[in-house]
Amino acid sequence: MMRSHYSGDVTAATIDTDITVCGWVHRRRDHGGVIFIDLRDRSGLVQVVFDPDEPDIFAVAEDLRSEYVIQVTGRVRHRPQGTVNASLASGEVEIYTTELTVLNASETPPLQLDETENVGDAARLRYRYVELRKPRMQRHMQLRAQVTRAVRKALDDQGFLDIETPILTRATPEGARDYLVPSRTQPGHFFALPQSPQLFKQLLMVSGMDRYYQIARCFRDEDLRADRQPEFTQIDIEASFVDADDIMAINETMIRALFADVLGVALPDPFPRMSYAEAMRRFGSDKPDLRIDLELVDIADLVADAEFKVFSGPANSDSGRVAVLRVPGGASLTRKQIDDYTDFVGRYGARGLAYVKVNDAAAGRDGLASPILKFLSDEAVDGIMARSGAADGDLLFFGADRATVVNDALGALRVRLGHDLGRVAGEWAPLWVVDWPMFEYDPDAKRWEALHHPFTAPAVDDPEALRADPESALSQAYDMVLNGTEVGGGSVRIHTPEMQQAAFDVLGVPREAAEEKFGFLLEALKYGAPPHAGIAFGLDRLVMLMAGADSIREVIAFPKTQTATDLLTGAPGLADNAQLRELGIRLRTTGKAEG
Amino acid sequence: MMRSHYSGDVTAATIDTDITVCGWVHRRRDHGGVIFIDLRDRSGLVQVVFDPDEPDIFAVAEDLRSEYVIQVTGRVRHRPQGTVNASLASGEVEIYTTELTVLNASETPPLQLDETENVGDAARLRYRYVELRKPRMQRHMQLRAQVTRAVRKALDDQGFLDIETPILTRATPEGARDYLVPSRTQPGHFFALPQSPQLFKQLLMVSGMDRYYQIARCFRDEDLRADRQPEFTQIDIEASFVDADDIMAINETMIRALFADVLGVALPDPFPRMSYAEAMRRFGSDKPDLRIDLELVDIADLVADAEFKVFSGPANSDSGRVAVLRVPGGASLTRKQIDDYTDFVGRYGARGLAYVKVNDAAAGRDGLASPILKFLSDEAVDGIMARSGAADGDLLFFGADRATVVNDALGALRVRLGHDLGRVAGEWAPLWVVDWPMFEYDPDAKRWEALHHPFTAPAVDDPEALRADPESALSQAYDMVLNGTEVGGGSVRIHTPEMQQAAFDVLGVPREAAEEKFGFLLEALKYGAPPHAGIAFGLDRLVMLMAGADSIREVIAFPKTQTATDLLTGAPGLADNAQLRELGIRLRTTGKAEG
Repeated sequence: MMRSHYSGDVTAATIDTDITVCGWVHRRRDHGGVIFIDLRDRSGLVQVVFDPDEPDIFAVAEDLRSEYVIQVTGRVRHRPQGTVNASLASGEVEIYTTELTVLNASETPPLQLDETENVGDAARLRYRYVELRKPRMQRHMQLRAQVTRAVRKALDDQGFLDIETPILTRATPEGARDYLVPSRTQPGHFFALPQSPQLFKQLLMVSGMDRYYQIARCFRDEDLRADRQPEFTQIDIEASFVDADDIMAINETMIRALFADVLGVALPDPFPRMSYAEAMRRFGSDKPDLRIDLELVDIADLVADAEFKVFSGPANSDSGRVAVLRVPGGASLTRKQIDDYTDFVGRYGARGLAYVKVNDAAAGRDGLASPILKFLSDEAVDGIMARSGAADGDLLFFGADRATVVNDALGALRVRLGHDLGRVAGEWAPLWVVDWPMFEYDPDAKRWEALHHPFTAPAVDDPEALRADPESALSQAYDMVLNGTEVGGGSVRIHTPEMQQAAFDVLGVPREAAEEKFGFLLEALKYGAPPHAGIAFGLDRLVMLMAGADSIREVIAFPKTQTATDLLTGAPGLADNAQLRELGIRLRTTGKAEG
Repeated sequence: MMRSHYSGDVTAATIDTDITVCGWVHRRRDHGGVIFIDLRDRSGLVQVVFDPDEPDIFAVAEDLRSEYVIQVTGRVRHRPQGTVNASLASGEVEIYTTELTVLNASETPPLQLDETENVGDAARLRYRYVELRKPRMQRHMQLRAQVTRAVRKALDDQGFLDIETPILTRATPEGARDYLVPSRTQPGHFFALPQSPQLFKQLLMVSGMDRYYQIARCFRDEDLRADRQPEFTQIDIEASFVDADDIMAINETMIRALFADVLGVALPDPFPRMSYAEAMRRFGSDKPDLRIDLELVDIADLVADAEFKVFSGPANSDSGRVAVLRVPGGASLTRKQIDDYTDFVGRYGARGLAYVKVNDAAAGRDGLASPILKFLSDEAVDGIMARSGAADGDLLFFGADRATVVNDALGALRVRLGHDLGRVAGEWAPLWVVDWPMFEYDPDAKRWEALHHPFTAPAVDDPEALRADPESALSQAYDMVLNGTEVGGGSVRIHTPEMQQAAFDVLGVPREAAEEKFGFLLEALKYGAPPHAGIAFGLDRLVMLMAGADSIREVIAFPKTQTATDLLTGAPGLADNAQLRELGIRLRTTGKAEG
C-alpha cells in the first residue's frame, strides 16, 4: 500500500516512528522559513512539516498548492508547545518530512473546501467531487454506509434474506408517474422503473422466501417541489406468517439497533403507539413530532351556537373542525410575530388566525385581549379557557374551517411554534401511528381512494363487511414517525383473492383494469399465498435525520436538481436518431413529422 | 409470531414439546386411516400427523390439498420405528396435531414442485413464484444472500464504504447498447441506465472517499444469445492510493473469505498469476480453466517449411498460429467422436481438425495413424512428437489458422475434452490473468480498441511513450478467473488528464467527442485526482458457480427471457399516449404520422 497510516491514525502513539501518509494539501502555512501543510484524507487532517534543512524536499514543497495530491514519508514528533490542536486526533503531533512525492497536481479548485463558503447549489452539484471532499460530506457518506451496514446486520440477524427485484419492470401501483424505458426487442412497448418493489416482495412471500429485505432503488417522475429526488432508496422489508405487532417489533428492533450502533443513542423500548384518529385530534398531523408539547383541543361544542359564523359554521359541519392551540408564554408575542404566523397558516389554506392573549386568567373576559372576544359568549369563553388550561401569559390560537385545513394549519403552526419558542424537548421521539382508515373519499373524483395502497389488509376478515362499510373500515397499516417525519410505512397485506377483489371493488377499479395491471398478483394469491406483512423505510430521509442535515441531497453522493438534472454529468443528454429508430420511437418535434 | 419453530428446527431435541409450525402442504399420504402431511417452509420439511382420534381436526385435514397454507400446533414425538428419514433434519420426528388452521387454500398449482418434472422454461418463468418454492431455488436465493453478506463483511472489514451511484445517468463507455429513459422535464433528452458505475466510482476517488464498494445493478440492452440478462449485478470496488498488487490482495482476501464463510472451501493463498500472453500460449484462452491439465504447444517453427500449406501458411504468417493439443489416452477416441470434435471446433471458425493417433511412439512414423502424416517430413513429425511429449495411446489434435481462430478453437476443445475425458482435477481453480495488452487492433474498423476500457492505465508512465507504441503497450489490468470463467476484472485507472488524453488519442476519439462524453471526468482529473484502481465482479455468475448451477437465471429471483421479457408481470407493456406526449416522444408507427 502507498500509505502506512491514515492521517487520523497519526496520534501520539506513533511518535518517533517513520510513517507514510497520502492525501490532499488542505491548507499551507509558511512560518519562520518552514512550510506547514495540513494533509487531508478520509480520516481527517495531519500536520506535515517541510524544513529548509532538507533542501531537495523543501524545493518541491515550495510548489505545493491547495488540493495537490501528495505522499509524505517522515518521522512523527510532538508539536512544539503551544501549537497543539486539541480538536484533531492528530493534534498533538506533526510529521517531519523525509520523502515527498507529488502524486498529482491540481488546478485551483472551483470550490473552496472552507465550510463557511457560500457558493450556489449549481456549482456545488457541478463540481460534486470537490464538494464531497468537505469533511461534512465525508461524514455524511460514512454515516450512510454505517447505517446500511447496521440495517443489514439487524435484518440478517433476524433471518431476513437480501433478494434483488427487477428495475426493468411493469408500471407499479404507487400512484406517482412512472419513468418509462422503451423496449428495443418489442418496439412500442415500455418497461417502467419501479416506484417500489411492492408487488415483487409480495410475490416473494408467495414464493415461500419467508423473510425478505432489500435496500432498493425506487423511481418517481414527479415534480420535485419538496425535498425529493427522482431516484431514492428504500429499506424494503416483507415477512410471512406475521401480524402487525410482529412486524412492528422486528422493525423497532432494527431501528433501535441502528441508533445504538451508529449514534450510540438508546431509543425507547417499545416505541409508543398512537391511533391515526388520536394523532389528528391532538396534533393535527398523522406524523406528530412528540418532542413538542403543544396540543390541539377541540372546542366545536363550545362555539356551535355562537353568532360568530367563522366558528359556528365549521362547528356545525360534519367535515368541519374548531380547535384551539394553547401556547404557554405566548402572550408576549408581538403583533408582527402574530401576523407572520397568520401568513404561515395561510399557506395551509387557513383564512385567518384568531387568537386570545391571556393576561389575567382569573379576571375572566377582562383579563383577555383578542379581536374575537366580542363574538363569543361568556360561557364559550369560560369553556375555552377551562378546556385549554389557559394560564396567565398564554396565547390561544384558533383554527376553524374544514377539518383538513384546521389540521394542516394548526398542525404546522404547532411545529413551527415548538421550534420558534424552544419547546422541543429531547432529541429523538419515535412513534408508531396505527389504526389508519382503509379509504378516504375524494370528493372531486367522487370515489374512494386507498389511504396506503390497494394491497393493504383491512382490520375486518370478511370481504363482504369491507364492501358494506368502506367509510369506517380501518386498515392494518402502521407508519413509523420520527421527530415529526414519516420514516417508514407498511401494512399487513391482503393474502386472498377474494379480499383483494373486494378492495379493488371499493376503489372502483374495473375488473378488466385490475386484471390488466395486477392480474399476476391476483393469480398468485390463488396458489397458496401465506399471510404476510411488510414495511418500507425511506433511507435517504432516515440518514438525513441521523446526520442532522436539512436536505436529502446532503446524504446522496450524486443527487439531481429540482428539474431532475445531473449537473455533473449533464444527464439527461441527447440521443442519436439511429438509437431512437431501434427503439421504435421518435421525438415529438414541433409540428414536423419525420419520414 | 404465528410459528414457534421452522420445520427444519423440529429435531429430536424438541421431542415432547408443544410447538407451532406454518407452511405449505408439500405432500400428503393417507395410510392406515391416518393422514400424513409433509409440511414445507423455507427451512425444509417436517411430518405432521392427523389422527382420526381428533375428529374435528381430522375432518379439516381431509380437505387439505397440495400447496394449502396451514398452521399446525401439536406435540413432537418420535416417528415409529422403520419410518425414520435420515435425509431430513426433522427425519426422526413427527408432529401429532392438536390444532390446525387453514391460512389459505390453493388451486392446483400450474407447476409441480417435484424437481424431476420437466416443464418448459416459459411456464417456470410465468409462475416464477411457484418455481421459487422448489428447494433448489430456495437454496440458490439463500446462497446468494449469504454471498452478498460475506462480500459486504469482507469489504467493510477492509475499510470500504458502501456508496450508491445513480441509475438515471449519462451514456456510459462500456460499449454495449444503453437503455434509454426519456426525460419529461427536458423533452427530447434521455437518461441512460448505467452499464457500470465506472465513471462515478472514479469520481468518488477524486472525491476522497478512498475506498468504495457497491453491489450495483447494471444494464445492457444487448441481444441475449449467451446466458445474459438485460439487468445484472456487479460487485463494484474502487480504492485510492493503491497499485495493482494491493487491489489484487484486497480482492483475494474477499473471495477467500467468501468461499470460506459460505462454502467452507479454502482457496489458495495467494492465487496464482499468469500473463495474458502465457494464458493464450498454453491454453488458447484469456480465462483458462486450470483444473484441466491439457495444454497447447506451439509447433510453427517445426512446420514452417512443410509443403502442407494448411500448416506452413499460418506458420509463416505474423497473425498465424500452429499448435498441437496432446490428449493423453485419446487414441481410443472413435472416428465418430473425432468427427464430433471437428464439428465443435468448426463453431469457433476452424476449417478442420487434423489429428495424429499415437499407437507406438517408439516406432516413429510407423507407429502413428493420421491422414496428415504424409504431408509432414520425418523431422517435423519427430519434432512434434518430442515437443508435445506424446506417448503411446495419446492423440494429438492440431490447430493451424489465424492465431485467434486457433486459440478459440483449441482453447474450447481443450475444455470440452477435459470434461468429456474426466480430466478436471480439483474443485476450484482461481487465477489472476495480468499483463494485458493495452489495445487491440480492429482490422475492419482500422483502429485501436481498448482491450479493457479507455480509463485503464498503461504500464508506462509517459503519455508520449503510449502514443509512440500502442501495439506493445501493456496495461495495468487484471482479471480474476475461476474454473475457466472470468468472474471479475479491473485495472489501475489513469489519474492524470495528460495520460487520459493520450489514451483517447490512440483510440482515435476526437477531442470534441471525448469532451462531450467524458468531459466531466477529464475535468475532474485536473483537480487533484489520486492514483486509484478498482475491479468489478459479476455477482450473478459468481453465485451461479458457487451454486453449481448452469445458468444465471437459476440465481436471479425474477429473470427475463432471451427476448428481455418478464413473463410473470408481462413487462414490457404498453404505455398510454398521454404519457408519451408528456415525454415528448411518439411511437414510430407504420407509415402513419400522428398529429
